[in-house]
Amino acid sequence: MGTQHIISIGDFDRDGIDRLLDHAGQIDKKKFDPDALAGKILAVLFFEPSTRTRMSFESAIARLGGTSISVGSVDACSMAKGETLADTIRVVSGYADAIVIRHPKEGAARLAAEFSTVPVINAGDGAGQHPSQTLLDLYTIRQSMPIDGIDIALVGDLRYGRTAHSLASALSLYNARLHTVSPNGLELPQTLAAKLRDRGMEIIEHDDIREVIPDVDVLYVTRIQRERFPDSASYFNVSSSNRITPELLEGARKHLIVLHPLPRVDEIDPRVDNSPHAKYFEQSRNGVPMRMAMLLQVLQ
Amino acid sequence: MGTQHIISIGDFDRDGIDRLLDHAGQIDKKKFDPDALAGKILAVLFFEPSTRTRMSFESAIARLGGTSISVGSVDACSMAKGETLADTIRVVSGYADAIVIRHPKEGAARLAAEFSTVPVINAGDGAGQHPSQTLLDLYTIRQSMPIDGIDIALVGDLRYGRTAHSLASALSLYNARLHTVSPNGLELPQTLAAKLRDRGMEIIEHDDIREVIPDVDVLYVTRIQRERFPDSASYFNVSSSNRITPELLEGARKHLIVLHPLPRVDEIDPRVDNSPHAKYFEQSRNGVPMRMAMLLQVLQ
Amino acid sequence: MGTQHIISIGDFDRDGIDRLLDHAGQIDKKKFDPDALAGKILAVLFFEPSTRTRMSFESAIARLGGTSISVGSVDACSMAKGETLADTIRVVSGYADAIVIRHPKEGAARLAAEFSTVPVINAGDGAGQHPSQTLLDLYTIRQSMPIDGIDIALVGDLRYGRTAHSLASALSLYNARLHTVSPNGLELPQTLAAKLRDRGMEIIEHDDIREVIPDVDVLYVTRIQRERFPDSASYFNVSSSNRITPELLEGARKHLIVLHPLPRVDEIDPRVDNSPHAKYFEQSRNGVPMRMAMLLQVLQ
Repeated sequence: MGTQHIISIGDFDRDGIDRLLDHAGQIDKKKFDPDALAGKILAVLFFEPSTRTRMSFESAIARLGGTSISVGSVDACSMAKGETLADTIRVVSGYADAIVIRHPKEGAARLAAEFSTVPVINAGDGAGQHPSQTLLDLYTIRQSMPIDGIDIALVGDLRYGRTAHSLASALSLYNARLHTVSPNGLELPQTLAAKLRDRGMEIIEHDDIREVIPDVDVLYVTRIQRERFPDSASYFNVSSSNRITPELLEGARKHLIVLHPLPRVDEIDPRVDNSPHAKYFEQSRNGVPMRMAMLLQVLQ
Repeated sequence: MGTQHIISIGDFDRDGIDRLLDHAGQIDKKKFDPDALAGKILAVLFFEPSTRTRMSFESAIARLGGTSISVGSVDACSMAKGETLADTIRVVSGYADAIVIRHPKEGAARLAAEFSTVPVINAGDGAGQHPSQTLLDLYTIRQSMPIDGIDIALVGDLRYGRTAHSLASALSLYNARLHTVSPNGLELPQTLAAKLRDRGMEIIEHDDIREVIPDVDVLYVTRIQRERFPDSASYFNVSSSNRITPELLEGARKHLIVLHPLPRVDEIDPRVDNSPHAKYFEQSRNGVPMRMAMLLQVLQ
Repeated sequence: MGTQHIISIGDFDRDGIDRLLDHAGQIDKKKFDPDALAGKILAVLFFEPSTRTRMSFESAIARLGGTSISVGSVDACSMAKGETLADTIRVVSGYADAIVIRHPKEGAARLAAEFSTVPVINAGDGAGQHPSQTLLDLYTIRQSMPIDGIDIALVGDLRYGRTAHSLASALSLYNARLHTVSPNGLELPQTLAAKLRDRGMEIIEHDDIREVIPDVDVLYVTRIQRERFPDSASYFNVSSSNRITPELLEGARKHLIVLHPLPRVDEIDPRVDNSPHAKYFEQSRNGVPMRMAMLLQVLQ
């Protein structure tokens, strides 16, 4: 049996996902050996900054008794100077028992896995995959409701938002119905939409977030980056029209949950934070048990 | 009982301080359990660089069997991009068992404590507080003499130097007499002086460091930043006039100790380093047992 | 007995080197106590970036149960601002049980050792020494053949390449014969060549890498930095004329090994990677057991 990597959520079947979610649930109930990965070293190789993903993985390995050695984004820059990613990976896999990689280019994680002698976990590569985020998203949904057959609205930048793409793909295994609300020009890519429909997923596009609120179980809000817009007036216009407020949620289902991969900027009114709908901070916290389950899967 | 934070030295009464100093003394004698904080994670969240304070906290948690996960100042920058401090703290408190924060803005640590679900320790916020520095200053004084009733001279930049402010406040609990020697324009703020006098502290201003030397038990020297002066001639003039030299110390009390929060530049002649008066490197070293006592207080 | 430091390979006699190589060999066979350095703290003080050396030391201390506290190059910069290296070392040696230092200035490591109260290991200072690299180079050679009496070719930038200098010095203890192949202007410094010859080492200069291939047991290739050349045409000319390819190696001895301290850029054709001659990735991996042996030597 070869080395096990976690590169894309698309590499998992539904059983594989459910097993990981179950495991994270056990870990959440403190049912794990705090020395399970004692003596193991996780190399955290981030070629672009992502403080929270990095800290979450570092926390996960520490909770299991292991150690992380980190390459900051600045270091990684200098590391990569003139050296191929293949060489970097071969060197780093001599220092560690597993590698978590984040890279600005799509496909980098799969390339890394080819050259690594130890397991590689993709922590986001370009517009590509971010499987640990998708798993913790699914885990957070399942804490509130069975995932099967949910109605979920994806709100925000659905063109560039890799977390939304990964989650939509995974949900096609759970008979979910997808509602999309995105500004002009930031719609879900047609090729992805076509692929999801091929798998039998129903996708409904909406122009107005208000019309989707009463009909969904999950609101998945993503950050809209100011850089996508020609000027701040048009950014402000778009971000305020989709802004989640307590007033907007008045007509929502009682069990509706609001998720966001964070950081948020203007997309969710802070007054929503104390509402029972708000689950984004739990979602963030769930990153630790979910990543612990992933580390145990590849390292045990 | 709520989560315990350490935000300001002003939150402690004398008993609280003495208990922490006693505890650090025990730790210094190796009377501590090296696994006391095994499995605990300390998030080190520094929004401005401070290598020695950071390393000292990282050393302290490691000595007790715990792990630290760090956010370098560069990362912290990018982390804060567009995100409120409240959100950052809520996220990070999901990854760790305690947070040490350093922030350029006064009041940041207290704000962090409001939103954190885990204990917060202030490692310096703007011109505000720096309680761990004050505790290790007091601890170093007490290694040489009882703190009660000492004569202490604060020398250098007393206007912007938060370590001097914090220490002066704490010493008002110990009937200390304060002597100040500072360049024009860098005097102790009037409001602070008034507050200290209200608490019964005697404050004596001096123009010349030579007149204060024979009369004090502690010389607390702080760094004068070159940037505070219009040109390097006036900087050099001021820094050399207050410079601590072996010659200057000739008339000193035998038990006089010289402290400095470090880094020093020109304020203390390196020839003083080998004198029995010089305690600034011990002072720096005391940061570890002192911070171990603080971590044990909030995490046990 | 004073504190033990590792500053220069020149401080070791042959017995001392052999003992360390033997110890690394034992460690490689998993014959070590994974808690041998439990509770020990290694301060990693890098004043210039060197991701792989840093990670390798961090991995080494973690494999032995210890902890590292790191100063990134950016932090180190700000740390050093206005503070003498002597002061920095005195402070950091109060936080840790040993210090690994990398510094752009030759002699910095020896200066650090003077002021440190804990062992100092030199991880490279300017054009000076880099003893851990030399030890792992020797260790890698010895995995393939006895070091005594080998013919070794040093290829590339022999003027500025400190790894080549250190290795040549160490090999003078092993009756090795040195072949050099370097571009005009990047030859081995005359003073070093004279010193080696004084010790009885035979040094043979070659103009063409092809003439050296059939006669050597080890090819030690170093990186040629583009900055050394006036324009990229002359760089390309030089780097391609010395480039190691499968075709070039056809006339080589069967047991010839190719080493490189990495990162490589154009010096070795990636098609060589799968040849039995290629040992540079093993060499990189050997950094961990070798540095574990060094840490045990100074910390136990």
